[in-house]
Amino acid sequence: MPTQPLRAEPDTSTVPVHDDVVRAARRLRGIVHRTPVLTSQRIDAACGAKLFFKCENLQRAGAFKFRGAYNALVQLGAEQRRAGVAAYSSGNHAQAVALAAQLLGISATIVMPHDAPAIKLAATAGYGATIVRYDRVTEDRAAICQMLAARQGRTVIPPFDHPEVIAGQGTAALELLEDVGMLDALFVPLGGGGLLSGCLLATEAMQPGCRVYGVEPAAGNDGQQSLRRGELVRIAVPPTIADGAQTQQLGQLTFPIIQRAVADILAVSDAQLVTAMREFAACMKLVVEPTGCLGAAGAQSMCGALQGRRVGVMVSGGNVDIAQYAQLLGHA
Amino acid sequence: MPTQPLRAEPDTSTVPVHDDVVRAARRLRGIVHRTPVLTSQRIDAACGAKLFFKCENLQRAGAFKFRGAYNALVQLGAEQRRAGVAAYSSGNHAQAVALAAQLLGISATIVMPHDAPAIKLAATAGYGATIVRYDRVTEDRAAICQMLAARQGRTVIPPFDHPEVIAGQGTAALELLEDVGMLDALFVPLGGGGLLSGCLLATEAMQPGCRVYGVEPAAGNDGQQSLRRGELVRIAVPPTIADGAQTQQLGQLTFPIIQRAVADILAVSDAQLVTAMREFAACMKLVVEPTGCLGAAGAQSMCGALQGRRVGVMVSGGNVDIAQYAQLLGHA
Repeated sequence: MPTQPLRAEPDTSTVPVHDDVVRAARRLRGIVHRTPVLTSQRIDAACGAKLFFKCENLQRAGAFKFRGAYNALVQLGAEQRRAGVAAYSSGNHAQAVALAAQLLGISATIVMPHDAPAIKLAATAGYGATIVRYDRVTEDRAAICQMLAARQGRTVIPPFDHPEVIAGQGTAALELLEDVGMLDALFVPLGGGGLLSGCLLATEAMQPGCRVYGVEPAAGNDGQQSLRRGELVRIAVPPTIADGAQTQQLGQLTFPIIQRAVADILAVSDAQLVTAMREFAACMKLVVEPTGCLGAAGAQSMCGALQGRRVGVMVSGGNVDIAQYAQLLGHA
Repeated sequence: MPTQPLRAEPDTSTVPVHDDVVRAARRLRGIVHRTPVLTSQRIDAACGAKLFFKCENLQRAGAFKFRGAYNALVQLGAEQRRAGVAAYSSGNHAQAVALAAQLLGISATIVMPHDAPAIKLAATAGYGATIVRYDRVTEDRAAICQMLAARQGRTVIPPFDHPEVIAGQGTAALELLEDVGMLDALFVPLGGGGLLSGCLLATEAMQPGCRVYGVEPAAGNDGQQSLRRGELVRIAVPPTIADGAQTQQLGQLTFPIIQRAVADILAVSDAQLVTAMREFAACMKLVVEPTGCLGAAGAQSMCGALQGRRVGVMVSGGNVDIAQYAQLLGHA
């Protein structure tokens, strides 16, 4: 029994590149849903642009996270599979690792915050994972996870700062570009940067002319600050309804990719997220969680500059407590 | 100027058959969305069956109705197109005719009830149609529509009792069967019977072994009564949240097809519709209007008999007022 965990993070020696996304897409074929790209005549008319929404809220386990999790887990060796995996997550990565582990017959322990949405806790447990709770404000989830993993010999699957996780997330953009052709811009929700850096890897090789924007909550604009200063900025846990983007800083792997290739990082308010959430429900009949609305709210904020353009929007997830969702929709 | 409207209804001399559905599918290719068929591991586990949801809430104008409307309008002659069309509808057929008319450059007048959901009124007006309101309880919408049509020479496009409308709606089932293969059962929302009879035409030829069920609100079970008695039963406007299924009787064309081919007609309560609506939001990230939940609620009510089966569910539409939707989701 190893006394040190088989750490998969942070393996900064392996910087992911476009080919890793292509290889991930091959591994994920038939396993992940090729989610639909939906459009809305009404939203197009309101924005003056042609918008293509990549609906990862319709992905297995309700978010893009399943792509990265499966791509990481399926590459574990026989011994690592036997020992199991561990992960820490505010929710969607937890469900993703739990489902991927279930499909691959691997034992999973997930460290989740006490205030994680009930729907995400229930779904994670439903996929057969063991859940360990922690206090988001006073405890260090990474440390708890590492300790648990060390004790049990589990491999830690980090939520974003891992080359195969990043490559897996990038397959969402790869599918989008394959399905809709040329895009002038792409708007991507930004938490720790796994989805954004993966989408940048996919896009810079396939469509170098497409401007890719990261969009984060205004209350937690560490990515924007980091990009401006040219170094990783760490912030306190931000107060925002976008619980999937309450990360405190970008990753060692994700930040350099973002620095190199992103067009800009935008920040939007919770009120803008609620407006986008209502539009998704009314015009597109889609339930989108607050974090999943970041891309749409970012595109909305730039409508003036997007006239007549072809614009991609990543809809990252749909896992929101129904009571909270009803409340957000109802307060007009 | 004709003094009699160019009535498209009830042309019972032209009883639609399976080939009409196949021809409709050819006409609609590239015009209607081939809507995704979505699945949910959680719902399958809860029901003990494999469910395939045909998501017509993601259809253009938010419901299957666009299929039938376009299929009827595209076959009008040059003179009829110039004179324009008229329709009466509680909502989704209105939007569908308005959008089809807009795409074909035809003028449309729509007779809508005073209590139609605001979202449906707004969307219909948004597609450029002229709206005439009436009182659902005291006035006869068909008569108002016929009178308007007669005065202006417009062709009336009825909501369900029309061979090309029925054939168009059937293309939803045709696509579903093409996409998922063999089904043991199919559950279809039932109002006037346009969708159900179209689905029956598609299914009885393609998969005669598939048992097709119509599902209507318990408060308005005229279809069930008609089937039991062997003759058309007319009821008062039923009090139900399923505003798309508040029809008072089946059609002259739809009833014989239903009588011949349906496995049974089920009735579900509004409470069952709300439960299904919540499951769609929580497990599938889909906004489904009350009427659109009929098929799922019907399948749910028969879970015991469906163990291990492959089951199709028509999700007919997603046009629900967001305030009403939030309220229905929130009252747990």
